[in-house]
Amino acid sequence: MEAVAVLGAGSWGTALSIVLADNGYDVRLWTHRSSLADEINNKRTNEKYLSGITIPENIQAETDLESVVKDVRHVVLVVPTKAIREVCHELNGVLDQTVTITHAAKGIEPETYKRVSEMIREELKAELYDDVVVLSGPSHAEEVSLRQPTTVTVSSEQLEKAEAVQDLFINRQFRVYTSPDVVGVELGGALKNIIALGAGISDGLGYGDNAKAALITRGLAEIARLGTSMGANPLTFSGLTGIGDLIVTCTSSHSRNWRAGYKLGQGHKLEDVLEQMGMVVEGVRTTKAAYQLSNTQNVEMPITKGIYKILFDQEDPRDVVDQLMTRIRRHEMEDLTNILDEQRND
Amino acid sequence: MEAVAVLGAGSWGTALSIVLADNGYDVRLWTHRSSLADEINNKRTNEKYLSGITIPENIQAETDLESVVKDVRHVVLVVPTKAIREVCHELNGVLDQTVTITHAAKGIEPETYKRVSEMIREELKAELYDDVVVLSGPSHAEEVSLRQPTTVTVSSEQLEKAEAVQDLFINRQFRVYTSPDVVGVELGGALKNIIALGAGISDGLGYGDNAKAALITRGLAEIARLGTSMGANPLTFSGLTGIGDLIVTCTSSHSRNWRAGYKLGQGHKLEDVLEQMGMVVEGVRTTKAAYQLSNTQNVEMPITKGIYKILFDQEDPRDVVDQLMTRIRRHEMEDLTNILDEQRND
Repeated sequence: MEAVAVLGAGSWGTALSIVLADNGYDVRLWTHRSSLADEINNKRTNEKYLSGITIPENIQAETDLESVVKDVRHVVLVVPTKAIREVCHELNGVLDQTVTITHAAKGIEPETYKRVSEMIREELKAELYDDVVVLSGPSHAEEVSLRQPTTVTVSSEQLEKAEAVQDLFINRQFRVYTSPDVVGVELGGALKNIIALGAGISDGLGYGDNAKAALITRGLAEIARLGTSMGANPLTFSGLTGIGDLIVTCTSSHSRNWRAGYKLGQGHKLEDVLEQMGMVVEGVRTTKAAYQLSNTQNVEMPITKGIYKILFDQEDPRDVVDQLMTRIRRHEMEDLTNILDEQRND
Repeated sequence: MEAVAVLGAGSWGTALSIVLADNGYDVRLWTHRSSLADEINNKRTNEKYLSGITIPENIQAETDLESVVKDVRHVVLVVPTKAIREVCHELNGVLDQTVTITHAAKGIEPETYKRVSEMIREELKAELYDDVVVLSGPSHAEEVSLRQPTTVTVSSEQLEKAEAVQDLFINRQFRVYTSPDVVGVELGGALKNIIALGAGISDGLGYGDNAKAALITRGLAEIARLGTSMGANPLTFSGLTGIGDLIVTCTSSHSRNWRAGYKLGQGHKLEDVLEQMGMVVEGVRTTKAAYQLSNTQNVEMPITKGIYKILFDQEDPRDVVDQLMTRIRRHEMEDLTNILDEQRND
């Protein structure tokens, strides 16, 4: 059976490998850590990232990138946003054929404000890939590995490349849709992590579901506003990779971003929270990037600004949430109408 | 201090009375049941509907509708949709002045497909009210009565009437926004109960957060589609009374509609579930109305249709969910684009 390369053996990389393995592919799963590769290959587990799951036999973990990508048509990149450029750089040295790159990273680069597919296109030699496909949606890795029903969206510049990736992953429980809006799909996945931090903070402060629902709703309006200013179709934020992913991330203790926010809400310091978690919390860097972007793009983002202040200016979470709740604006539609106007002026 | 009449001493009527009492108004809370009136007035509790909450002294429960509405400027209607016409009929016999009616009922009438404000306008004599204001949003009564941060939206034909109601209710924890879209605010609140039933069914079947997020996202698209066909602004469904209320209802065990769905998902029969709960589950009647409407309006609503089949045709919940998950449509934007097209053709 055809081999597929998956780069990154964290929770999501391992879960996506399981989907591919279920579909009959021979999965070559790349990790830097030889101890993790040994655990996957010999014990058939990945306890740190997917506790309690048995890894199928047709997943082979390897540390040698060159042999992992040899002769494959598809490379699936599931590394943190921070590592994307470096891994592409390594791929330039070992790839000998043209592949389709699929990525499942959810972040924006601070300072450059680049989306992940833009970073990949900047780093990777043009002759080594035919398209970059983003895969995103409401999908806890734990549930995917338990074969629970899940929906995701794939998007790329050329529809047929997204459809090829759809064929790769789709099965009875793992439903894959296509979308033409690469910008919107990437931004929705990245920006929702900011709101997930906020939802965690609200819960950590002891506020209830009413407050959290307000925060998610207003948060979605502001990430849609930023996304639209960056070229996304505003409707994408109403879809699986927007609201869908936001709901799953904000209402479940599976989410790292929510968990980090929860601890911040309880009064812990950012450095301590990140050290305790020992996993990448994409929302922290994305909050910085979005905060910077909202200033350069002149987009009003009160929730993102508030979370930025909690993360980087040591402001008290309770003060920030109280300020957000008692903002002066009285007419809800003012915010929403802005988006509609932008959309109508397209 | 000014007296305000609140009709209906269920969870939400009692919680809204507490907000008004906190704002200094003398609240006259009307209930049919003299035993409940006695409990509220003497024990200062409403154990069945708001367990553990102390009712403020400036709330007086009464069973005589005439004395409750005497000389008030504001009547707040918080009875089930089913009882709206009857209560308006009673008001015709006892009101002697012109009032502003605020309602907080979330339903649509089967067969007539009327929204609550339309039912009120049909029943109430024209000289007895100057406007009908709807109050809706993500607001569990329990949290409101605990003074936890909450946001709601009010909407009416005349903006100044909505603003008067905003002034009545707004305080530090209870934030009230206005919207000009009466149709959208009423429909969002009503139709989300269908999706809440669906979310409960998914949870009751043992499916995870990924499946539920997909169902909520696709559910929102279809209620927005129906709402737009009935004259709502599609953006309202992205606001507090749309997504916001949907999130709070679908992700919390406080919600009756979710709880009813949960039991249906576990295999219980509708009659048994309703009997066990002993409270009105608005989503059941609303599912029937929306199902009928989707046929007459020719709007595609696969989730509503599926839930209708579970409720009224005894179809197996697992079969229905499996069918929904494996629908043929592959391009997510097809659904969403329909909404945009309708919007652009306004």
